[in-house]
Amino acid sequence: MNDAHPDPVAPVAFDFEALTPRERYKLMIGAIVPRPIALVTTRDAQGRANAAPFSFINCLSADPALVALGVEYRPSGAQKDTGRNVRETRAFTVNIVSAAMLDAMNVCAVPFEPGVDELREAGLTVRAGARVPPPWIGEAPAAFECRHHSTLVIGSRDIILGEIVYAHFRADVVDPGNLHVDAGRLDALGRMGGHGYCTTRDRFDLPTMSVEAFRARASGA
Amino acid sequence: MNDAHPDPVAPVAFDFEALTPRERYKLMIGAIVPRPIALVTTRDAQGRANAAPFSFINCLSADPALVALGVEYRPSGAQKDTGRNVRETRAFTVNIVSAAMLDAMNVCAVPFEPGVDELREAGLTVRAGARVPPPWIGEAPAAFECRHHSTLVIGSRDIILGEIVYAHFRADVVDPGNLHVDAGRLDALGRMGGHGYCTTRDRFDLPTMSVEAFRARASGA
Repeated sequence: MNDAHPDPVAPVAFDFEALTPRERYKLMIGAIVPRPIALVTTRDAQGRANAAPFSFINCLSADPALVALGVEYRPSGAQKDTGRNVRETRAFTVNIVSAAMLDAMNVCAVPFEPGVDELREAGLTVRAGARVPPPWIGEAPAAFECRHHSTLVIGSRDIILGEIVYAHFRADVVDPGNLHVDAGRLDALGRMGGHGYCTTRDRFDLPTMSVEAFRARASGA
Repeated sequence: MNDAHPDPVAPVAFDFEALTPRERYKLMIGAIVPRPIALVTTRDAQGRANAAPFSFINCLSADPALVALGVEYRPSGAQKDTGRNVRETRAFTVNIVSAAMLDAMNVCAVPFEPGVDELREAGLTVRAGARVPPPWIGEAPAAFECRHHSTLVIGSRDIILGEIVYAHFRADVVDPGNLHVDAGRLDALGRMGGHGYCTTRDRFDLPTMSVEAFRARASGA
């Protein structure tokens, strides 16, 4: 399964084609970090709301404004509901999870029986979507309403692309003049491997260098 | 552009269809955080190596083991080289960026003229790929060799899906027995909006509850 050497500094290698899906999953979620967390809200064809947390999600393009979401076909669980609802009603909303929403997010991850309203169980505030059927979550520091763009069905996964058509920000999180998002007030959580999470409270800025700035630095100027 | 209300607690809304691409970009990168960072290595048809940092990247499926990468067609810059190289040689390697690699990563982001070897300028160690042409970076705590799976050409972006075929982990980062990744030793960086980054040093664990555990808690048991 691996080519570990006795020398402690030598790297450990894994042939993914020889690993089980569970083994691949553990290495991927442990190392491809930190992942953004979205509490994804959808509605089924009968109008019932669903909410489930995802970390196989990211923005991949701003023009058009696309987010990608990896949804498993699992025998049970809210991920399956999310995938079915997107197929039925062709929309989903990405609610960013702040540290203050941690417990509510974890309630939405409980594998409730079908028909249970996770948002109610979690005590979250449901607000009507402006452009899409799914509700957005009033407690979220930012929420992005997405129309279904396309779906790639690959193995046991749907990879769903959504185009952002509308967004809601808590007023203290964004400057409407320059669209600057205040990362401290957003206070988003990130997903790590296993049961792990990280905060975004330990931050710093590092601008990209111009070629001239890099050359000047390299020459000791 | 927005429907801000004078009431400071009222949310601020943005109609994405009325925003410019730059405005959408600012809101997305500011709020869809923390994003994982990959220093993506590729080779062109002549075998020359390229390295460029990306945060429009995530794992979307473990079975198959897929990562998605959003690559811009920009008039200049290493992102364009990455997209061209993947088209030419059908592979890329995702090198996870630890805090110790911050400066080297930022050198790889300098918009050098074509033909400059970012890896050499950054002082990074080039190691031969085991299954794919691109090199992997010896300093990376984890590196995933990916074969090209498919590309969606959407607007000004290539959305590239790669299937992980092989991985290299620094020996102190992973337990080869149970495949547990040590997040502290990995010490990955995350990407925030603007010029912002976060560390993954402020972490905690939170297991998902069973339905029974949630009911017991809700009833005060």
